[in-house]
Amino acid sequence: MTGTMPAPFTADDYRARMERAARAAADAGLAGLLVAPGPDLVWFTGYAPTAETERLTLLVVAPGREPVLVVPTLEAPDAQKAAGAPALTLRDWTDGVDPYAATAALLDGSGRYGISDNAWALHLLGLQKALPGTAYASLTDALPMLRAVKDAAEVELLAAAGAAADAAFEEIRKVRFAGRRESAVAADLADLLRRYGHAQVDFTIVASGPNGADPHHEAGTRVIRDGDMVVLDFGGLRDGYGSDTSRTVHVGEPTEEERRVHDIVREAQEAGYRAVRPGVPCEEVDRAARAVITEAGYGEYFIHRTGHGIGVTTHEPPYMIEGERQPLVPGMCFSVEPGIYLPGRFGVRIEDIVTVTESGGRRLNDTTREMVLVE
Amino acid sequence: MTGTMPAPFTADDYRARMERAARAAADAGLAGLLVAPGPDLVWFTGYAPTAETERLTLLVVAPGREPVLVVPTLEAPDAQKAAGAPALTLRDWTDGVDPYAATAALLDGSGRYGISDNAWALHLLGLQKALPGTAYASLTDALPMLRAVKDAAEVELLAAAGAAADAAFEEIRKVRFAGRRESAVAADLADLLRRYGHAQVDFTIVASGPNGADPHHEAGTRVIRDGDMVVLDFGGLRDGYGSDTSRTVHVGEPTEEERRVHDIVREAQEAGYRAVRPGVPCEEVDRAARAVITEAGYGEYFIHRTGHGIGVTTHEPPYMIEGERQPLVPGMCFSVEPGIYLPGRFGVRIEDIVTVTESGGRRLNDTTREMVLVE
Repeated sequence: MTGTMPAPFTADDYRARMERAARAAADAGLAGLLVAPGPDLVWFTGYAPTAETERLTLLVVAPGREPVLVVPTLEAPDAQKAAGAPALTLRDWTDGVDPYAATAALLDGSGRYGISDNAWALHLLGLQKALPGTAYASLTDALPMLRAVKDAAEVELLAAAGAAADAAFEEIRKVRFAGRRESAVAADLADLLRRYGHAQVDFTIVASGPNGADPHHEAGTRVIRDGDMVVLDFGGLRDGYGSDTSRTVHVGEPTEEERRVHDIVREAQEAGYRAVRPGVPCEEVDRAARAVITEAGYGEYFIHRTGHGIGVTTHEPPYMIEGERQPLVPGMCFSVEPGIYLPGRFGVRIEDIVTVTESGGRRLNDTTREMVLVE
Repeated sequence: MTGTMPAPFTADDYRARMERAARAAADAGLAGLLVAPGPDLVWFTGYAPTAETERLTLLVVAPGREPVLVVPTLEAPDAQKAAGAPALTLRDWTDGVDPYAATAALLDGSGRYGISDNAWALHLLGLQKALPGTAYASLTDALPMLRAVKDAAEVELLAAAGAAADAAFEEIRKVRFAGRRESAVAADLADLLRRYGHAQVDFTIVASGPNGADPHHEAGTRVIRDGDMVVLDFGGLRDGYGSDTSRTVHVGEPTEEERRVHDIVREAQEAGYRAVRPGVPCEEVDRAARAVITEAGYGEYFIHRTGHGIGVTTHEPPYMIEGERQPLVPGMCFSVEPGIYLPGRFGVRIEDIVTVTESGGRRLNDTTREMVLVE
């Protein structure tokens, strides 16, 4: 994610987002928001610096003021090209100047600010030192749902990314698995994602046999064999919005137990999906999926939360996890991805991105959730 | 930079680094170091998580204790494969547990800690909340030279990366420039860096004509023309260590003024290089290069510092900048890269990586610094 994005959004769209965020900040008792390079800044302005460095780039959004982007002089020409640039004031600083003092002049010295989760500690410490009376909360703590509710254009971008990932799955199921390394199939998957329009591939997990029991195994040197279950989990960014889907395929004929475990995960995924509707707390999606697995006796082998939000990143709030009481709101988009992981043996995970509609959920992935047999 | 690195370093090397860092921390009055995913963690342990996420991964290094790597359970198997893993204790935490409380149990509640510059604000705020009596300084502020002095093996990795970048330059000077877009030449450069062993390409700046006057212009849609000056600035990581070199070429015959400006920059680069020897403050390297440009009447057009360190990143301390009094130490590696930028017209930059030896400086780039004419 470098350079300015080919975003379909205009300066007015970005201005509206910043104004909405400023109001949300005020409602939450914040003096403003400090937005660092990365997904927050892309979402607010369309601007993605070439690299995140020790040189401070920070957007200050405060109620009733025009947003100001503090930016190193060297990077100002790039920032000026961002689609959101007309909706803000650029304030550049040159090597040798103290950028924290320059930023402090824009802040309320006794205010509480929300700051991007991924802002560098270096920069936060610089601000804390420049303005000891200020207080900070991470944006996820302060305004967890800031980017969580997508507008219609964003949902359609996520749907297009999901359709592209689905198209990649429909092709990968036809390739040869047996006798090839996981990493070779992963490379095929990455190529397919790019061919279907992904500018950035974030992950192409190919976890065969016992590797499938490690939910974060990527793709390694193991040679896939006849009789293996293979977890495929892949995604990235297409037109600036994320895809993330998982299917578990089998090389040749599965055993009874493999079929049963796959069925349980499929039912759990369906139950999670069916729990989606406006007003339902996020944790209920987790509970619905988990209940199926627990009742089938595999509860201890479902060792992660059921889902995470997706947008300009492939991993963001809201989280479908026990304890998350945030009610679902139409426009939220997140994964529903239960799994069962049997150490040393195999794993199964099935994942769709789901968006909340007025009446329930809409899947943004729709390849078959039955077990696909591959060669 | 994902997955575990194909590092040439052993668990003993990493153990020695951690012990040395713990002593340096104690000497600096710190209770310990908190090391986040990214270059610091790679340097300390050889471990690079697949992604930097909201899930806390943090290495705690404290004098007199074995280092502990706090890591999400899902990622523990990956962490265990890192070359440095035998030199530390893994402490994993599962979704639903408070990782800051778990980390707090490893810390001195009234201690002052150095924390990676790029640690997420989310995580720093989590620690500040869990242990209000602790204080923090960025690693660059607290121990700026922690990774700055390279050992012999590191210098040779940097030399190999530099030689690979030089080989790329020797090929790119033969390709056609006139009539092609900057982005096409940049793609050639990226291919060449990869062909010469770079696993990661960080930047391939091709800034032609007036674009050369913007030091951070990357490579765009401008079609390069006969008569253009073209700044080439490229680098990345090879075997985990960085390259970064710049040469300015000319399409066809240059004008007198273009020759003169190029000569001044070349002399400035030479002066910066000649200033390098143990004990000299970093700022003297900047001053030496800048003096040449200022005396020639172009001082106002040299709008950035003269150099930056390089190691497991392409951009790190020490900085060759006015005000940096840190004396040079044998093993430090950094760029010497003066430039002149004439707005709306053209720019010139010449950059080598230089390492400090017992007696002076050694260039890790050595293609000609005379102006190369291209077609």
